Amino acid sequence: MDYDTIAAVSTPIGEGAISIVRLSGPEAIQAADRIFRGSAALTKVGSHTIHYGKIVEPETGRVVEEAMVSVMKKPKTFTREDVVEINCHGGLVSVNKVLGLVLDQNVRMAEPGEFTKRAFLNGRIDLSQAEAVMDLIRAKTDRALNVAMGQMEGKLSALVRELRNELLDILAAVEVNIDYPEYDDAEIMTEKLLFEKASRVAGKLDRILSTAGQGKILREGLSTVIIGRPNVGKSSLLNHLVHENKAIVTDIPGTTRDVIEEYVNVGGVPLKLVDTAGIRETEDIVEKIGVERSQAVLKSADLVLLLLNNNEKLTGEDRRLFELIGDAHTIIILNKTDLPSHVSADELQRLASGRPVIRTSLLQEKGIDELESMIASLFFDRGVAARAETYVSNTRHIALLKQARSALSDAITAAEQGLPVDIIQIDVKRAWDILGEIIGDSVSDGLINKLFSQFCLGK
Amino acid sequence: MDYDTIAAVSTPIGEGAISIVRLSGPEAIQAADRIFRGSAALTKVGSHTIHYGKIVEPETGRVVEEAMVSVMKKPKTFTREDVVEINCHGGLVSVNKVLGLVLDQNVRMAEPGEFTKRAFLNGRIDLSQAEAVMDLIRAKTDRALNVAMGQMEGKLSALVRELRNELLDILAAVEVNIDYPEYDDAEIMTEKLLFEKASRVAGKLDRILSTAGQGKILREGLSTVIIGRPNVGKSSLLNHLVHENKAIVTDIPGTTRDVIEEYVNVGGVPLKLVDTAGIRETEDIVEKIGVERSQAVLKSADLVLLLLNNNEKLTGEDRRLFELIGDAHTIIILNKTDLPSHVSADELQRLASGRPVIRTSLLQEKGIDELESMIASLFFDRGVAARAETYVSNTRHIALLKQARSALSDAITAAEQGLPVDIIQIDVKRAWDILGEIIGDSVSDGLINKLFSQFCLGK
Repeated sequence: MDYDTIAAVSTPIGEGAISIVRLSGPEAIQAADRIFRGSAALTKVGSHTIHYGKIVEPETGRVVEEAMVSVMKKPKTFTREDVVEINCHGGLVSVNKVLGLVLDQNVRMAEPGEFTKRAFLNGRIDLSQAEAVMDLIRAKTDRALNVAMGQMEGKLSALVRELRNELLDILAAVEVNIDYPEYDDAEIMTEKLLFEKASRVAGKLDRILSTAGQGKILREGLSTVIIGRPNVGKSSLLNHLVHENKAIVTDIPGTTRDVIEEYVNVGGVPLKLVDTAGIRETEDIVEKIGVERSQAVLKSADLVLLLLNNNEKLTGEDRRLFELIGDAHTIIILNKTDLPSHVSADELQRLASGRPVIRTSLLQEKGIDELESMIASLFFDRGVAARAETYVSNTRHIALLKQARSALSDAITAAEQGLPVDIIQIDVKRAWDILGEIIGDSVSDGLINKLFSQFCLGK
Repeated sequence: MDYDTIAAVSTPIGEGAISIVRLSGPEAIQAADRIFRGSAALTKVGSHTIHYGKIVEPETGRVVEEAMVSVMKKPKTFTREDVVEINCHGGLVSVNKVLGLVLDQNVRMAEPGEFTKRAFLNGRIDLSQAEAVMDLIRAKTDRALNVAMGQMEGKLSALVRELRNELLDILAAVEVNIDYPEYDDAEIMTEKLLFEKASRVAGKLDRILSTAGQGKILREGLSTVIIGRPNVGKSSLLNHLVHENKAIVTDIPGTTRDVIEEYVNVGGVPLKLVDTAGIRETEDIVEKIGVERSQAVLKSADLVLLLLNNNEKLTGEDRRLFELIGDAHTIIILNKTDLPSHVSADELQRLASGRPVIRTSLLQEKGIDELESMIASLFFDRGVAARAETYVSNTRHIALLKQARSALSDAITAAEQGLPVDIIQIDVKRAWDILGEIIGDSVSDGLINKLFSQFCLGK
């Protein structure tokens, strides 16, 4: 398909050594050539070559930048269109000036995600691969990067295509039976056979979905709340988690400390510390925000870390916290084990009622490793970690897989009830369609626009 | 000279479409090749070509990124060494992962500014051009960009070299006179001739220095303080300046509003609004920070905007503000001209005592254009603006030019006093040396290290 020519700044905004203005479309090379003065005309150079020159105002010849310009001709480009990348010295004013000159050459400002959208529309990548591009950019740990990379390489697409092929085989067999009942050599698609085949696909879907929770956590982070009475060690724990582990969002000039401390990498699991800035050693979370709101916060958390003071008897407030956590995923941390214990082991065991208990002395830096292994193992068992790259992680994909699974359940139930195969196949067809939405084989323009609009500018 | 191989992330840190890991040095191509899997080995490809492939962990073959890799062989590169740029999908974790792999290949993390430093040490650019690279990145307006671009293209260097050559001619002539007094055809360097020649160079230095103030403002911004009684329109004025003009530092995710509003582009002049966050409509600056500190703030400002209320009689507080501003560059703004005037014209004229007065109605958006032209014309007359590209803007350069000027003054005085030429030439030689420091012909390693350490990482 032939689109217009678009351009955007493709590097993060800020002061840096290199900024890139990227162009894509049929006029990309001509447009760049008009503002370029170098040893050769860009329209004359070979594909995938780099050229040094000046970026000038075409009317006045005034030099506005020094640049290395990359020319990449279709189809072997990110968008499968002609692509030009103008690498200029970083800086807001200079890169905006270059972008402005480009946009004066009958080039349109790209919408967020529009380059990747073209890669999808031009058939270079499917929708789940396109989505993985953003996941890759936003990955918060190495593990999450793995998942995104696998998805970008088409591992999820391959799985989905395999399932769709199996469903298509069922649908084809049903069609043959209906249209050509006289064909003796065609497999006869009985309800029994259909039940077996649909169940096999359903089983595969179940296996994929079984790791979806982990995949989602890797992609979005494990939202974690630290609670405990005042002075029990909440901010110590927070500091240990933040400072002993690489803070994930680090070194971004101008970001506030709240943001810096939002994610910590604990054994490959991105911990998203909820209300980090709000946790102060002297604050009582329940008192501060009220019981109802506290319960809501705890309920929405993926993980609660409940701190107790080993050196004092359990108080009414401690017991109240146990009531509050309900059935939230909780690790109990008995802190200050460097001091004599005044906590009744029996009562603690009763209150913990099977929840894991870790003994720490944050002062002496003891027990933190155990806590971190516990967090990692609570959400990622060994078997799962080993095949990390086949995780499904995206909420949209998970929802579609569940819908497809549900359509297959309907088909299976119908087969069990002995309904005719041409009725059952409707559900199978539905599952096939839904799976197609993951890779973008059957999606609306509206959804595509919505998905790509969540991308960053210049991607 | 042969250095080791260095690498750094050369794009601004943050989520973006493209991040670049740049390598430079004798092993750059080999190192990149070890972690690259593409259609060809990077060690075999031509210079200035681009190659698609995967970035992998060399031991495990695990794919960590998809990348376009640019190979540029010396000497036609930014550093005059072999350079490789790995363009990968943006994102903190992924780009750090790629950088980590690069650093595992016997490559050292580059220090801030080290790429540009190599461009200087390898003789591609001189010191003032290297400094212009950072000025270009940090340029806050189009005009400042012009100045930096001119300096990067070597306009300041050419000027300095011209002056140095003239001084060298003097020195050579003196040498000839001293060493070969018998040469009849050599120009005889009398004190009178030396006086004339030194004065000519001094005159040229004076002309360059005459625009230094403007150059410095373009580079660093015009620090501006808005004062006035409570409710006179201070925050209105601030909003008009910020919102009607392009705020210069804009759209950087994670930056606070304080920073966003720090610079405004007024007719090409970058206004740096001092204590922006502290200016609130209800606050009295003097009362808030005390008289002494207020005076210090006003004294250090390049421009003071003093607001008065047209609709009320001048008060003691207004008069006190006039006393406070002393001889600071001030524009008086008589606001609320949409309402009846109760300000005595005589008294205002007396208080203003020659300072420009602009009448505004910020409510009706009147007078703001006049204010902006006034600001621009106060610091940049037409003549100066026309030859914007020859500004000297850097504090270090200005200081050196002043020192060289002072050395020449010493020479000129000595010549007037009839001292022997071989004594006078010592001062001329000193001026020549000092000017050499601007372009880096005679600078210490310590200074070079200090200058480049102020660069950003990856540059």
